[in-house]
Amino acid sequence: MAVDGFEFPEMHTVAGFKMGCAFADVKGRKPAVIEKDDLVLMTFPEESTVAGVFTKNAFCAAPVIVCKENLSENIRALVINSGNANACTGDRGLTDARTIDQKVAEVLSIQEKQVLPFSTGVVGEHLPVERITSTIQAAADDLKEANWTRAARGIMTTDTRPKGASVTIDVGGETITITGISKGSGMIKPNMATMLAYVATDAKVEKQLLQQLLVDAVDQSFNRITVDGDTSTNDSCILVATSQSRASEIKTENSEAYLAFVAALNSVMLMLAQAIVADGEGATKLVAVKVEHAESNKEALRVAYSIAHSPLVKTALFASDPNWGRIVVAIGYAGVQGLDVSKIDVHIGSVLIVEAGQRAPSYSEALGQSVFSQDRIDITVDLKRGDSNETVWTSDLSYDYVKINAEYRS
Amino acid sequence: MAVDGFEFPEMHTVAGFKMGCAFADVKGRKPAVIEKDDLVLMTFPEESTVAGVFTKNAFCAAPVIVCKENLSENIRALVINSGNANACTGDRGLTDARTIDQKVAEVLSIQEKQVLPFSTGVVGEHLPVERITSTIQAAADDLKEANWTRAARGIMTTDTRPKGASVTIDVGGETITITGISKGSGMIKPNMATMLAYVATDAKVEKQLLQQLLVDAVDQSFNRITVDGDTSTNDSCILVATSQSRASEIKTENSEAYLAFVAALNSVMLMLAQAIVADGEGATKLVAVKVEHAESNKEALRVAYSIAHSPLVKTALFASDPNWGRIVVAIGYAGVQGLDVSKIDVHIGSVLIVEAGQRAPSYSEALGQSVFSQDRIDITVDLKRGDSNETVWTSDLSYDYVKINAEYRS
Repeated sequence: MAVDGFEFPEMHTVAGFKMGCAFADVKGRKPAVIEKDDLVLMTFPEESTVAGVFTKNAFCAAPVIVCKENLSENIRALVINSGNANACTGDRGLTDARTIDQKVAEVLSIQEKQVLPFSTGVVGEHLPVERITSTIQAAADDLKEANWTRAARGIMTTDTRPKGASVTIDVGGETITITGISKGSGMIKPNMATMLAYVATDAKVEKQLLQQLLVDAVDQSFNRITVDGDTSTNDSCILVATSQSRASEIKTENSEAYLAFVAALNSVMLMLAQAIVADGEGATKLVAVKVEHAESNKEALRVAYSIAHSPLVKTALFASDPNWGRIVVAIGYAGVQGLDVSKIDVHIGSVLIVEAGQRAPSYSEALGQSVFSQDRIDITVDLKRGDSNETVWTSDLSYDYVKINAEYRS
Repeated sequence: MAVDGFEFPEMHTVAGFKMGCAFADVKGRKPAVIEKDDLVLMTFPEESTVAGVFTKNAFCAAPVIVCKENLSENIRALVINSGNANACTGDRGLTDARTIDQKVAEVLSIQEKQVLPFSTGVVGEHLPVERITSTIQAAADDLKEANWTRAARGIMTTDTRPKGASVTIDVGGETITITGISKGSGMIKPNMATMLAYVATDAKVEKQLLQQLLVDAVDQSFNRITVDGDTSTNDSCILVATSQSRASEIKTENSEAYLAFVAALNSVMLMLAQAIVADGEGATKLVAVKVEHAESNKEALRVAYSIAHSPLVKTALFASDPNWGRIVVAIGYAGVQGLDVSKIDVHIGSVLIVEAGQRAPSYSEALGQSVFSQDRIDITVDLKRGDSNETVWTSDLSYDYVKINAEYRS
């Protein structure tokens, strides 16, 4: 079950960025169940620049530790397994991640330090290193620029569908392509699902600037479906610029090329983030919670997350029940100091549901239901306190959420 | 569905404290469905002292506002309706609550200000004031000291069973009784269920001291199944001391009588709070999350709530699946600065499951399942940082939670 209308888009290839997929039987089911590939290799030329953003969880997984160690090197390859997170696996987990990097380096004739490893799946179990290393050659044999869809499937865990986004922009008569894939499930607290995203562009972007662009884009996309600092053990987002486009290098922050590139990158990242929410575990609805006229962005986010995390709001959304009382209760306990509840307006879609802190006189259940029965819902809260606005995205809470998470390991 | 083993106990009557119950058809179903009484009146003599603790939600309900206004008066009666919360109802909500108080005062020949009103149920709908006021006489006609069980049922909403606790203590050869009832459902975030608790004692306790005793007891009981400040619009806890016992007045904080009374009061309050969690919406398990050796109580609570609120931990508990990785992930995103994860031990029951941040060598799935399949589970986290310990209580997350909350208004 997932929100409709998120078809996998046409994926423009990115010159120089190749992917290869294979089945390593990471889960080790007996007999082996080949649902899909579970090992993905990504390679790119020496002149590429690479940026990365990683989880802030105190228990960060072994591959994340290795990624952070290696990121300053001239990265040439990414290796991703699904089915096992290699998290909470201690020193052996680090050794396992490095052993896999070493094998990738050997197969591709590069250095171990030039490989970034990623894992997603169950926490606390050791990786089947031999099954993975013995499959790397098969993944390398499969490397091609046109493998985006297979790679998107290869990194999936509980995802019900592959997620991708791709745009091209014209810069000074030359085309720049930005294409990416993501995996993860937006849950009650989406921050607890491992989210992985890999975005490639053929633009030429200086490494430091690329890192800053990625941090900013993550903040406006993946960090708007999660709470600061509340991340899984493995969350990672990588941006690779292969430098193969004939467009000039993107350097200065105020150039037209820079602004066009930022807008395009942000839109790809937001699409990838929204696709995660819309494929939430058991999600049937994609909900945008917009908080307007807060005193600060922090305050706006507090109120937005309070609503977006409320299981009572989320079950009401699932039931298509416009139980607006649950929305105002969530606003009330968001902890905003000096909140004057008698000023607050709430809209669902274009319907005014709460006016000056009370049920709006014009509101009717029929109006509310006409909005709540849709599969994309906007909840807009006007605090009338200041000038700060923020939007976060979430999904509803269904029977299937419990089912998926109660049965995930069985 | 609720955790087994919470039978309604023998309830000792409290001299002077009377309850009367009636059916006012608060929900106004057509045709009227008499599931149980929905109006409860409580009275006590003039020499009683009364203490109260209320929600911190910015949207506090009309009856809570009236309670706070009246609490300093010589309170003589409480009137409680279930089925409608009279919250987010603006000025009319206040008028409605006062109209009901006025009617109670008239029937009992006391002043309107001597009545505290309470409501629990759906938010944002106006009370059926006439149906309530016309039923108060019937409730008054029913007043008796032996009505604890009926009162416990009368205040219920989605609760599956009445909740009560009762103890007697001997103080200087005289008996003091403490008896109370509660309602509410411990949910994913238990703080969002309206919790009501009414505790009566025949002890004689000075009003200021009684208030302090109640604040302290709430902090160690109801505030350990909720997050500070994150409360529903209607949460209220009232303690009435009727002064009818022959035991001497409890005055000084260090007397033996005082210490015995505090211990007994705290145990009654904790039983009432735990009964709420165990009757959580769809709950099948009662879980105590204990965090030891934190640097501060605040830090211990942060970690404990991070685990207790994790929907992934809660679904694993429901599935009896000892997925310890979900516990460590929740510890990791609790936001503890400088946390050394390689020191942390976790026990479930008496089984060591995580040792020094990793799966314990002695741990096996069979051992974990033997604990997780029980309906009372202790999760103990040793942070090895300091001297502060805290315990919070929660329940698991089941299919029924979603069902109950998706269908609550239909």
